[in-house]
Amino acid sequence: MANNRLFEVDEWKIRTNHLDKENRRLQESLTSIGNGYMGMRGNFEEQYSGDHHQGSYLAGVWYPDKTRVGWWKNGYPEYFGKVINAMNFIKVDLFIDGEVVDLFTDTIMDFTLELDMKHGILTKSYLVEKNEKQVRVEVERFVSLDQKELCVINMKVTSLSDSVHLRLVPTLDSQVKNEDANYEEMFWLPVAAYSNQLVVETKPNDFGIEQFRVAATMTNRVTHLENTGSLVTPMQVNEVFEGTINVGETAAIEKLIVLTTSRDGEIESVGERSKEISVKVSEQSVDELRVQHESLWLERWKKADVVIGGDAAAQQGIRFNLFQLFSTYYGEDERLNIGPKGFTGEKYGGATYWDTEAYAVPLYLALTDQSVTKNLLSYRHNQLSGAEHNSRQQGLDGALFPMVTFTGVECHNEWEITFEEIHRNGAIAYAIYNYTNYTGDKEYLIDKGLDVLTGISRFWASRVHYNCQKDQYMMHGVTGPNEYENNVNNNWYTNKMAIWTLKYTLASLELAPEKKLVLNLTDEELRKWQEIIEKMYFPYDEERGIFIQHDTFLDKELRPVTDLDPSDLPLNQKWSWDRILRSPFIKQADVLCQRKDY
Amino acid sequence: MANNRLFEVDEWKIRTNHLDKENRRLQESLTSIGNGYMGMRGNFEEQYSGDHHQGSYLAGVWYPDKTRVGWWKNGYPEYFGKVINAMNFIKVDLFIDGEVVDLFTDTIMDFTLELDMKHGILTKSYLVEKNEKQVRVEVERFVSLDQKELCVINMKVTSLSDSVHLRLVPTLDSQVKNEDANYEEMFWLPVAAYSNQLVVETKPNDFGIEQFRVAATMTNRVTHLENTGSLVTPMQVNEVFEGTINVGETAAIEKLIVLTTSRDGEIESVGERSKEISVKVSEQSVDELRVQHESLWLERWKKADVVIGGDAAAQQGIRFNLFQLFSTYYGEDERLNIGPKGFTGEKYGGATYWDTEAYAVPLYLALTDQSVTKNLLSYRHNQLSGAEHNSRQQGLDGALFPMVTFTGVECHNEWEITFEEIHRNGAIAYAIYNYTNYTGDKEYLIDKGLDVLTGISRFWASRVHYNCQKDQYMMHGVTGPNEYENNVNNNWYTNKMAIWTLKYTLASLELAPEKKLVLNLTDEELRKWQEIIEKMYFPYDEERGIFIQHDTFLDKELRPVTDLDPSDLPLNQKWSWDRILRSPFIKQADVLCQRKDY
Repeated sequence: MANNRLFEVDEWKIRTNHLDKENRRLQESLTSIGNGYMGMRGNFEEQYSGDHHQGSYLAGVWYPDKTRVGWWKNGYPEYFGKVINAMNFIKVDLFIDGEVVDLFTDTIMDFTLELDMKHGILTKSYLVEKNEKQVRVEVERFVSLDQKELCVINMKVTSLSDSVHLRLVPTLDSQVKNEDANYEEMFWLPVAAYSNQLVVETKPNDFGIEQFRVAATMTNRVTHLENTGSLVTPMQVNEVFEGTINVGETAAIEKLIVLTTSRDGEIESVGERSKEISVKVSEQSVDELRVQHESLWLERWKKADVVIGGDAAAQQGIRFNLFQLFSTYYGEDERLNIGPKGFTGEKYGGATYWDTEAYAVPLYLALTDQSVTKNLLSYRHNQLSGAEHNSRQQGLDGALFPMVTFTGVECHNEWEITFEEIHRNGAIAYAIYNYTNYTGDKEYLIDKGLDVLTGISRFWASRVHYNCQKDQYMMHGVTGPNEYENNVNNNWYTNKMAIWTLKYTLASLELAPEKKLVLNLTDEELRKWQEIIEKMYFPYDEERGIFIQHDTFLDKELRPVTDLDPSDLPLNQKWSWDRILRSPFIKQADVLCQRKDY
Repeated sequence: MANNRLFEVDEWKIRTNHLDKENRRLQESLTSIGNGYMGMRGNFEEQYSGDHHQGSYLAGVWYPDKTRVGWWKNGYPEYFGKVINAMNFIKVDLFIDGEVVDLFTDTIMDFTLELDMKHGILTKSYLVEKNEKQVRVEVERFVSLDQKELCVINMKVTSLSDSVHLRLVPTLDSQVKNEDANYEEMFWLPVAAYSNQLVVETKPNDFGIEQFRVAATMTNRVTHLENTGSLVTPMQVNEVFEGTINVGETAAIEKLIVLTTSRDGEIESVGERSKEISVKVSEQSVDELRVQHESLWLERWKKADVVIGGDAAAQQGIRFNLFQLFSTYYGEDERLNIGPKGFTGEKYGGATYWDTEAYAVPLYLALTDQSVTKNLLSYRHNQLSGAEHNSRQQGLDGALFPMVTFTGVECHNEWEITFEEIHRNGAIAYAIYNYTNYTGDKEYLIDKGLDVLTGISRFWASRVHYNCQKDQYMMHGVTGPNEYENNVNNNWYTNKMAIWTLKYTLASLELAPEKKLVLNLTDEELRKWQEIIEKMYFPYDEERGIFIQHDTFLDKELRPVTDLDPSDLPLNQKWSWDRILRSPFIKQADVLCQRKDY
């Protein structure tokens, strides 16, 4: 499946004529849209009873899901934080002659699904036949870059038969679950419900994390149908529109949904703010709303488009990556970060990982205003006390930035990652260097960067140990970037990033010596850092003249990939974990055979 | 708490006058009783609404509880097997003047709790005051060594006041849960219920494991009270006895419970067999039943008593250990094994661990008939195909006996244990050597032992790898007996056990060369084993002239225990897991500094 092509090659579009019931989940993931504030998978507005994954997400609206592991290890975080599945606000049920249209079971013809990445618009159209009557449905959806709280759904239903009775039921439905909930419970509780508004909040938790309140208000502008009723229950509300149309006639609904959260104001006023914004956006036509939205996407592309000539698939790929990254994060809110999977699903819980600094910062530096990256750096500075907490939990000094977090406090629960994959701390430091170097702006480094660098340096200095036999410093019990190794000693990359941080911190302190006093840095501590830099151990193979990934890497059975039976690939699906760990094969780039003069 | 003494020092008894509500769970664990076939924690028959842990267990009646882990690793077992909490069959609710006696909330005086290890009898007595009336309660309980299906409860209630209305409600209650259930569900379903019998069965599972059916029949012989009714619901039944007694009068109930399971016969006849045995045992008085039971305990002690002079606490300790071990397993059923915690609770799930071979076999060899140990060995032989399955799952040859099992198939779910703590395989082989050596009986070795040894040897031969640079064989990615290290290379003990197994298998094959053909062992394969024996690598420190625990052990920060701040102890409660792993401190015996001439 991994190598299937689900969509056509097109430089600007993700497009298909195939309603792919086998790969519906993947199709949904690949047609996700977002505006940094919120986003959703490419679910259908209409009913779809086949296997799929309903998912809408509001950035920063998360829940601390109590940790559940087979065997508890001391020091494990109490919860795994996750951006939870928000209410299903895109829902518009469609009935023809009283029967619901279900895109899984009904006869669907002439289907088109298209994500226009240039303008940030998702559309679909199809022809459905029911009781020998035919109807064409066209739907357009976008989450506005101009008004972050706004999602627009524009649906047209045209009859190709005479006397078709239509019913359209725009709905707000908060009876949603996370598929990955540790205890399989619902995370939402009702607050208030009206025919066009639903207010809910996350359930209380035992970890001192704030409850979030969310309000959704829908404005349904309908032509050719009458409002015939509504349903109001604590967790689901809808409005019902009905009427009969003849051949060639079109009934239409413009569903404007405005979502507000307690992240942006008083918890009591969440519903009120949602209404106010609804009133404001309702004064505009969909065309007006769309133009404002599209112009902002065009502005982004003007700054950021990466053009690859002569290879349309690669062109599509790079634009898809940029589209999804910008849909996830564009730096408007320094309290937010980049969930590894954006708004495309539950995996990785929409939390903050080191991937931001290692992989996303260079991109944002090159393709967006420098304020975007500065906000990413500030995010970590704001969470410094959480990182200090993590380090204390391990009995160490300074700051250890977490593998997974919303607050700076670690919430991942595998010991080989949480406690050991600490090279992540180096990436946080290196991002400060990247920003300073690329922009030439030294102010951030001096104002805030040095606080972070000092915390990280203190962590490294307490995490290494002195080996008196070798008169060198070592770092035991780590997992390097190659996660096909766990709990190794002296991973070259980690050791390197540790002394690189110490060096960079010492050099940066020279730019602002007055910070030493502020940060309580004594000459003795700085001398210790210098000693670690000078005496850091790196595993080295004399014979080959190369550094090696970690102490005993070259003791492995060293086989080339060409040795592998193709039926063993991909290894992570075919081999048991221990076999992978013992093998010389790597999951992702680490230091395999580094020349010494690097 | 670990160092609190909850019971008095007594050479044969576990005894206290303190109803310890703070440590009720621990008190329950330490007063567990069992007869190999079944057992239970030292719960009260009467109601106790305070924190405690209700637990009764039937050996070999288990459920495959679907594995739940934070992050799935390829090769993890699908379920964690556990002997599940069986019905609460000891229950006898006691009411005084219509009010239930609750040993947690009521005023209890003159309390005594006593486990007589010599005779295998648990007794308690107390005085309860309710509505200004006083009543003395005396209860005796044992699970018969003579009739394995029988549990006897003998309860006397004597009034110290006039005109006390008593109600006694002997109950069978299958509405029980496991505290450790991965999905928090009940494991029992109703089959049939009568006023004196309850039949239940384990719920179906997705793993092809048989469902178990259990029937309990109670015979209640009551004096001084009248049977006034009963309750029959699908999962709970009881009989009610009532009456009024005056000062000095004693009402009594003898509750004889007979538990049968589908392990010992047709599933449809479980209820019938329970009735038949009930009829048989009901012909005997409690005194008769007790005498038969006690004489068998005395017989065991005659063979096995370990006398420690001059240290009553040590004497009590060793007898407690023997009592609990014999209560758990005495070799009557070769389909059973020794759950590490016996019938004292849910921890370790009553499953089979390598502890049997490593620690229990030498004891049973010395203190019981040799047939007991032989049954333990046969247990593994019977599960050889499961062990072969485990090895295949890791892409290896031969047989890997599991860390946790009921069938031979692995059901533990931590990669550092399941996949890596493979020294357990050596213990299985070594037990065969121990048995053969101690008893002089070579027949088992030749008949069955060689099958097991060959399977284990084949596993070792495929688990090592050849290091061409050093021209030696190595074993990477293991966890030694010291579980304060994970995923190390060349653990001395594991490497040693591997070649010891190969040597012992080769030597044993000389006793029965004809088995080579049966086991499809070629000269080439045997030569390969010999080569591994000769070229096995052992980490060695030239300077000190010692073998070391694993490759990089001496690179650690080597600190003596005296260096530790007492507030850091015990380490596993005070230090995070990574810190423990990096430290030189060990959890349990491994090879720390082995002289080379060993």
